[in-house]
Amino acid sequence: MSWDLPIRKELNMVEEEIKRCVQSQQQLLTEISMHVIGAGGKRIRPGVSILCYKAVGGTEVSNVIGIAAAFELIHSATLIHDDINDGGTIRRGKVSAFRKYGVQLALVAGDFLFVKGFRAGGSFSKEVVEIIADSCACMAEGEILQVGHINDPSTSIDTYFKIIEGKTAKPIEASAKVSAFLGGGSPNVIEALGFYGLNLGMAFQIMDDILDIVGKEDILGKPKGMDFSDGTPTLPIILAMEDGYKGKRLSKLFEKKKKRRWEIEEALKILMESDAIQLSKEKALEFSNKAIESLSILKPSVYEEALKTLARTVVERES
Amino acid sequence: MSWDLPIRKELNMVEEEIKRCVQSQQQLLTEISMHVIGAGGKRIRPGVSILCYKAVGGTEVSNVIGIAAAFELIHSATLIHDDINDGGTIRRGKVSAFRKYGVQLALVAGDFLFVKGFRAGGSFSKEVVEIIADSCACMAEGEILQVGHINDPSTSIDTYFKIIEGKTAKPIEASAKVSAFLGGGSPNVIEALGFYGLNLGMAFQIMDDILDIVGKEDILGKPKGMDFSDGTPTLPIILAMEDGYKGKRLSKLFEKKKKRRWEIEEALKILMESDAIQLSKEKALEFSNKAIESLSILKPSVYEEALKTLARTVVERES
Repeated sequence: MSWDLPIRKELNMVEEEIKRCVQSQQQLLTEISMHVIGAGGKRIRPGVSILCYKAVGGTEVSNVIGIAAAFELIHSATLIHDDINDGGTIRRGKVSAFRKYGVQLALVAGDFLFVKGFRAGGSFSKEVVEIIADSCACMAEGEILQVGHINDPSTSIDTYFKIIEGKTAKPIEASAKVSAFLGGGSPNVIEALGFYGLNLGMAFQIMDDILDIVGKEDILGKPKGMDFSDGTPTLPIILAMEDGYKGKRLSKLFEKKKKRRWEIEEALKILMESDAIQLSKEKALEFSNKAIESLSILKPSVYEEALKTLARTVVERES
Repeated sequence: MSWDLPIRKELNMVEEEIKRCVQSQQQLLTEISMHVIGAGGKRIRPGVSILCYKAVGGTEVSNVIGIAAAFELIHSATLIHDDINDGGTIRRGKVSAFRKYGVQLALVAGDFLFVKGFRAGGSFSKEVVEIIADSCACMAEGEILQVGHINDPSTSIDTYFKIIEGKTAKPIEASAKVSAFLGGGSPNVIEALGFYGLNLGMAFQIMDDILDIVGKEDILGKPKGMDFSDGTPTLPIILAMEDGYKGKRLSKLFEKKKKRRWEIEEALKILMESDAIQLSKEKALEFSNKAIESLSILKPSVYEEALKTLARTVVERES
């Protein structure tokens, strides 16, 4: 079963809501927004929102559509800004917004999507707005920590976990918590689903970082080895750098600001031959299992089942 | 009398609130934020907020401090992103954030300030959040329109007014309206103060654009002729380009993507010798007068007087 099967209708409603949100009298803003949003993506954040809302017994779906759209809009804003920062040329199989439209327009379009996300999420109570805003602050904190460790071979695993918790896991935790709250979940249930979102996010990001090394480029929709090339310290890279004399060689390559194509190829070879991929997969699975365990608080339902499936899918995916 | 005299205490409270908002476990985020915010600035937006709140009879000052901080935080976010987009090296007499910290950190810090602004403004009712978010969307729309007319000598005065309405006047209109609403103003009063903010913002931006040509660099805190150099079409530049054979020469210089120092000097000379500065000042004064007229709905008070003084100060300032 595909995880999104029971909520296809709701996910379509979210797409419609997102399209409505990015309408602007400046058509270029709408165009750049839809360039990114329309390119696809897994819609994990809205999916988690809707499933959590339904799993706790929420019935008035229109309530959660705005929240789901808000998180996807904010996520899309960060994708545009991240690409500017990484110099990322390909995103979701398409040329990235800043490459197509230039830095100036992409930067403004990112701000526009942020604003629209906040507007969509801002029509709820103070508590909801604060959870959303705080998760966004965590995103910025994760990003800034990552920027501080670019090309740094001494980045610790703890720092890595702190980075991905901020930039990926906290917003998914927030979307789960807010949706469970809106659906009428008890404080314990809200907490448990927050924990689900947090661990799902960690598993998701670790898998992303693994796929950057082992994935198939046509399925990924972007070239392999981007993280290494950009100097982004990921779990498999950190683990492999700690591993013997080959690790030392990898560290030397990693700390170079400009890496040549053959150096990236050499790094990918070292990474593939190390235990780092396997160890990272085990770590991702561990987080995925923690996410699944935290669902035991829920009554069995097709939505609870889908949340489990999602946590499993995240660590089995190929893109 | 200085316009901020009756609200010095409240403006200090806003400074404290802003400092509190930008605290982060990532000290670098706080540092970059304070680099921009601590460099000064005229605090027009928080000033308008507090004066409007008090002028309509609002008494619970703590209510408006959050809103005032929100608008200044959002404004600071756009300053950081604008500097990235313009390549602006000097801001408020200090080196700009992106020059000091690099594009990556500055971009994230801008996002962080956006988020903190929304958090500060998000603890109010749905209506308030929507007014704030909509004014921010107008800002993005104004910016994108401006980017589309960079180095374009055929930019019309109407387009210029649309640009500055979006990027400057709409947020000031929003801060006036929201504050009058929170202070308990009637719908007519809220509307009138919104009109005040809108016209004040137009006058303010036109004066900014004039000072970029005629200002003293040590008072401005940045070099002269930046707008012409960046290819930003401003009212004095547009008016001067329409003016005879010298205007044709100015247009030729304006459309060059890379302008040499002597070309900017020549342009400044043409601008200074034209009627464009005087005509632009008259336009700014017209907006300032409209702002003052809209205050007639208020009961006389020290705050109403200060709003008038502010509108006069804006068109008489030297920086």
